[in-house]
Amino acid sequence: MADRAAKPLALTLGEPAGIGPDITIAAWLRRRELNLPAFYLLGDEALIARRAKALAPSLGAGVRTAAVSPGEAAAAFTEALPVVATGERATAEPGKPDASSAPAALASIRQAVTDVREGRAGAVVTNPIAKSVLYRSGFRHPGHTEFLAELAAKNGRVPQPVMMLWSPQLAVVPVTIHVSIRDALAQLTSELIVSTVRIVATELKSRFGIARPRIAVSGLNPHAGEDGSLGHEEQTVIAPALKVLRNDGIETRGPLPADTMFHEAARSTYDCAICMYHDQALIPIKTVAFDNAVNVTLGLPFVRTSPDHGTAFDIAGTAKANPASLIAALRLASRMAASPSSQS
Amino acid sequence: MADRAAKPLALTLGEPAGIGPDITIAAWLRRRELNLPAFYLLGDEALIARRAKALAPSLGAGVRTAAVSPGEAAAAFTEALPVVATGERATAEPGKPDASSAPAALASIRQAVTDVREGRAGAVVTNPIAKSVLYRSGFRHPGHTEFLAELAAKNGRVPQPVMMLWSPQLAVVPVTIHVSIRDALAQLTSELIVSTVRIVATELKSRFGIARPRIAVSGLNPHAGEDGSLGHEEQTVIAPALKVLRNDGIETRGPLPADTMFHEAARSTYDCAICMYHDQALIPIKTVAFDNAVNVTLGLPFVRTSPDHGTAFDIAGTAKANPASLIAALRLASRMAASPSSQS
Repeated sequence: MADRAAKPLALTLGEPAGIGPDITIAAWLRRRELNLPAFYLLGDEALIARRAKALAPSLGAGVRTAAVSPGEAAAAFTEALPVVATGERATAEPGKPDASSAPAALASIRQAVTDVREGRAGAVVTNPIAKSVLYRSGFRHPGHTEFLAELAAKNGRVPQPVMMLWSPQLAVVPVTIHVSIRDALAQLTSELIVSTVRIVATELKSRFGIARPRIAVSGLNPHAGEDGSLGHEEQTVIAPALKVLRNDGIETRGPLPADTMFHEAARSTYDCAICMYHDQALIPIKTVAFDNAVNVTLGLPFVRTSPDHGTAFDIAGTAKANPASLIAALRLASRMAASPSSQS
Repeated sequence: MADRAAKPLALTLGEPAGIGPDITIAAWLRRRELNLPAFYLLGDEALIARRAKALAPSLGAGVRTAAVSPGEAAAAFTEALPVVATGERATAEPGKPDASSAPAALASIRQAVTDVREGRAGAVVTNPIAKSVLYRSGFRHPGHTEFLAELAAKNGRVPQPVMMLWSPQLAVVPVTIHVSIRDALAQLTSELIVSTVRIVATELKSRFGIARPRIAVSGLNPHAGEDGSLGHEEQTVIAPALKVLRNDGIETRGPLPADTMFHEAARSTYDCAICMYHDQALIPIKTVAFDNAVNVTLGLPFVRTSPDHGTAFDIAGTAKANPASLIAALRLASRMAASPSSQS
């Protein structure tokens, strides 16, 4: 795979009744203005044509689609939105997921992973799915990312996926993610911090081209526990993990008081902030980069990015959806896939 | 007390070996440029004179002090930094608290409260103290704010102090404060949310002049619990509190996902965000307003503000301390004291 950088990005359909089709069309319309990397949508050309028609009063009538194979996508991209059929038709109306939603969404994700693993795509970019819709159809994974990790398994070994939120201003990684605060306290271990930071450090080098990544690690408690008077986890869980990581040669600082880690001057001192729970990571990045944060999955054998928002059923089909996060996700995926050490 | 607005602000000494004297001098030097409200320092004139001399190479030699009574302070302010003696000498060198530190710091706080309660000062502004230094001298309160609440007791009833962090961009109030995350979970009750928000709503009206305060209340868990799948406190603790508050006629929204509450567009929809724990409140405000956030104590029978930083022993006496937060605290105290309904 010598020139993965030149390969098109495989963009999944996501939930067909959500804003995925809308932002895909809106991003493609800005391809020249923003010099976007070539991508193809894995989905149902008829659905995209219908949605393009619905959006035409706002976005204009200039949306052409082209049914292509992945190999033809890059050449087609300048003149038409390339669509690679998955074989699953998606008949849902905007805002109204139906029985076709789950098969269409899942087929798209599966095929994107196959394409990137077999060298037809440079990276996977995923549109938002609706977990509740998938669950009603028998989907049994905790989420999008865990499903991708399953698909990335090799010899039965499922990799540990690590969620990073990235923006030009700030990159953050929560060690515990979609669990209650109470469960986050129970899940937080030195081992989880160590395995997470190792993956982050490795990929900051290989995918982001940072020779010597600087990693800032937050405390769990206010003021990072204030020497044990406001909680013990800094001393019993986080500090031991940092010791292991420093022995690995990874440049880490911490545990740091979380409230003073995210202002502009502090952000300039590290490449990624490791946080102990969801909101500790998501509050600062959504405060400073609400529209253009990208969800990146590290730890997989391929690059995967995603816009950092949901299906927004309430505005699907109305041209109100902002494609900024998808555009940022496409650009970051292209940059990561093009990183010299990213190519295998 | 018809013209509390015109009364000078009582500024406490704080820890004499910290940066309190430095930022007091630096703020006074900018009184004309920034049209600062008149204030007087409750402290030891000799200490200020020594510190002014130490800072002169950086800040210039134009610092005059004037030993005054509170009633003389406003008139003296333009020409000299007014110092009202507390009777406690402070002999500590910058960065080196000594046996004189605690008596000097505590006398200053006590006298400031007496001055504001007896109508000689418009509000109390406190310089940072060093709790560990006070503890060594037998101080037994959990912190500065709780000590002020004790001093504000009337007929043995100690008011509930509520900590607000205020900046022009965002105001936040953590319901639980300086406790571990684990203890915050145990302390969080509907009753505590209700009593906190009632105080906030009352003072947004009386001290901030907001006729109908809009209050946004965060969830505790990621995604505000996602309908109970990521934690139950939104349903069992927060929602019942909001019901009580709405019955009071207080305009509240919530429980809201904390990560999407603090970007610019979201901030414009409310006057104050109520958060469930320290970092949920402090991360966003220190991210957007690191230098000019002000710590405000609500719930007391007088106005009290404070810079939102510590004693910074490492830079005391070097002219490196930034007076921005103290300046913001002086201005906010003056504005709050001048609010028509604030005057009793």
